[in-house]
Amino acid sequence: MEITKPYLLFLGDAPDQLAAKTASGVVDWRRDWCVGQMRMEGCGADVGLEDLDVAGAVAAGAKTFVIGVVNAGGMLPDHWVDVIVEALDSGMDVASGLHMRLGDIPRVAEAAKANGRSLFDVRHSSERFATGKGARRPGKRILTVGTDCSVGKKYAALALEAEMQARGLDAEFRATGQTGVLIAGRGVAIDAVVADFIAGAAEWLTPAAAEDHWDVVEGQGSLFHPSFAGVTLGLLHGSQPDAFVVCHEPTRTNMRGVATPLPSIAQVIEATVSAGRLTNPDIRCVGIAINSSALSEDEARAVIDKAAADHGLPATDPVRFGAGPIVDRLIAEFG
Amino acid sequence: MEITKPYLLFLGDAPDQLAAKTASGVVDWRRDWCVGQMRMEGCGADVGLEDLDVAGAVAAGAKTFVIGVVNAGGMLPDHWVDVIVEALDSGMDVASGLHMRLGDIPRVAEAAKANGRSLFDVRHSSERFATGKGARRPGKRILTVGTDCSVGKKYAALALEAEMQARGLDAEFRATGQTGVLIAGRGVAIDAVVADFIAGAAEWLTPAAAEDHWDVVEGQGSLFHPSFAGVTLGLLHGSQPDAFVVCHEPTRTNMRGVATPLPSIAQVIEATVSAGRLTNPDIRCVGIAINSSALSEDEARAVIDKAAADHGLPATDPVRFGAGPIVDRLIAEFG
Repeated sequence: MEITKPYLLFLGDAPDQLAAKTASGVVDWRRDWCVGQMRMEGCGADVGLEDLDVAGAVAAGAKTFVIGVVNAGGMLPDHWVDVIVEALDSGMDVASGLHMRLGDIPRVAEAAKANGRSLFDVRHSSERFATGKGARRPGKRILTVGTDCSVGKKYAALALEAEMQARGLDAEFRATGQTGVLIAGRGVAIDAVVADFIAGAAEWLTPAAAEDHWDVVEGQGSLFHPSFAGVTLGLLHGSQPDAFVVCHEPTRTNMRGVATPLPSIAQVIEATVSAGRLTNPDIRCVGIAINSSALSEDEARAVIDKAAADHGLPATDPVRFGAGPIVDRLIAEFG
Repeated sequence: MEITKPYLLFLGDAPDQLAAKTASGVVDWRRDWCVGQMRMEGCGADVGLEDLDVAGAVAAGAKTFVIGVVNAGGMLPDHWVDVIVEALDSGMDVASGLHMRLGDIPRVAEAAKANGRSLFDVRHSSERFATGKGARRPGKRILTVGTDCSVGKKYAALALEAEMQARGLDAEFRATGQTGVLIAGRGVAIDAVVADFIAGAAEWLTPAAAEDHWDVVEGQGSLFHPSFAGVTLGLLHGSQPDAFVVCHEPTRTNMRGVATPLPSIAQVIEATVSAGRLTNPDIRCVGIAINSSALSEDEARAVIDKAAADHGLPATDPVRFGAGPIVDRLIAEFG
């Protein structure tokens, strides 16, 4: 499955900017893949692209109509169906990160079939995975892990990919969540895989490669999150990373959505090394990514400097200040 | 979902005894629920029950036709369909632990509908789970964990349940795999749950209960198995056990199906306490269950005595010698 580029980003009638964070993610990292945005009446989001309708997007070369908005319950509202059918009738594929499958909407399924177009439900992989094997594979892998969910693991991985590529490394972002899959054009929403196949899906996502190739793997959840740690562990075992980066949001006190307190960065490093050794005995931490979006620049620099000093590791906010210090360490350790 | 008792155990044309291990498990632990076995021509398995046909089983009171045989690939062979339809037409429900869903076989689905009977695909829960919450719940829980897959975690849990009930404790086996679900009549095959919901499914399975109630939870996989550790961790977090028992097969050298070496019992204790503290800070190991089926009785006693001495914990083969020593410790620690 590879989603065809370029995209028209459909924002529907998203009530606010947060509801369009899927589209924002694509624009932040793959601006060149986007010909424009499409908004319906009442839309409160704007991702800064030219407003186009379906005909205008097709004229601009758009190949895939991307539903870039999340919705309560992951349902696709009935009043979006007309424009989705119009996109299919106009020759575009459709991609969605909603829970509901596009193919479960009869008019959408029929229009896709009639026009020979593809429907990409990025939350639901059509791939059949094997169980994990745990055997070492050639190629190198770096994984972002977190003190919590939603602390910036995806953005850290994308910033690492960009900086590694800028240094001439052969690096490729590997998406493990629905927004990541839209940003990469492929990947697997690993939390939607059947539990037996988490590690196997991660192995499929990061296959054997040239020795100097780096897969930059988007992390999920946290080993310390009581809802999702199983996903995190399976991804760690399956991706068998040589290196990992701990992502942390310094103003957070509780794990997202639950009453569990946040672990320390040191606890995350220790637990990740301890569990990761099972499939890669040489696993090591190469840096700390601080998500400083809630801090002033001075506060951010202070938190980053303290994290670096406390742990003897390069630290940065890779989105705000670039991933340079971490990539310096990666090159120093792995060449 | 509660499977109606008693059962007719269908062995089909299972080539050997191993292929009928689902049925064997039911007979070993729930002999009273079984009115007989049904075997087709060429069947090489025998679980020691009276041979009955569908009519004979119905006359003996059977309510559910249980497919007690596993098959390469988990498929249901075409030549079993006639007898399944006959069972439905005769008023029995049908339960299966195969990967393939009963309802995906048109003749079976139609016969179930026409007769108003239920189809139980015990690998596929129809329950919709929430994500795990991680909050402490009243009631007590004991979990079996393992140095590997297939080391006797289910049988250890069932032996613990039997011994705890014999001592007058309010104890109930909680099934997490397909054979366990048939033995319990309910439960959830937790490795078949979508990854996001592993911990949530475990919380659903072991809900809030009276303070002196014990859920005896069937473990899955191993924290040290590179294919399945994510399932193990989610089950550990979701079931938030007060106590756990480490199950070990002393002749095994490699993790099942992979090249990874077996961890030590001490490593499993340490990793289980470390990870389990997230949802139960008081988690502790209360014993070691040695699966000594490959050893003579003298060898078994020697291995058990050494494990007890090495770890300062009660050890036994709970199936061969009973779970007494572990339950002694449980009562001493928890009253």
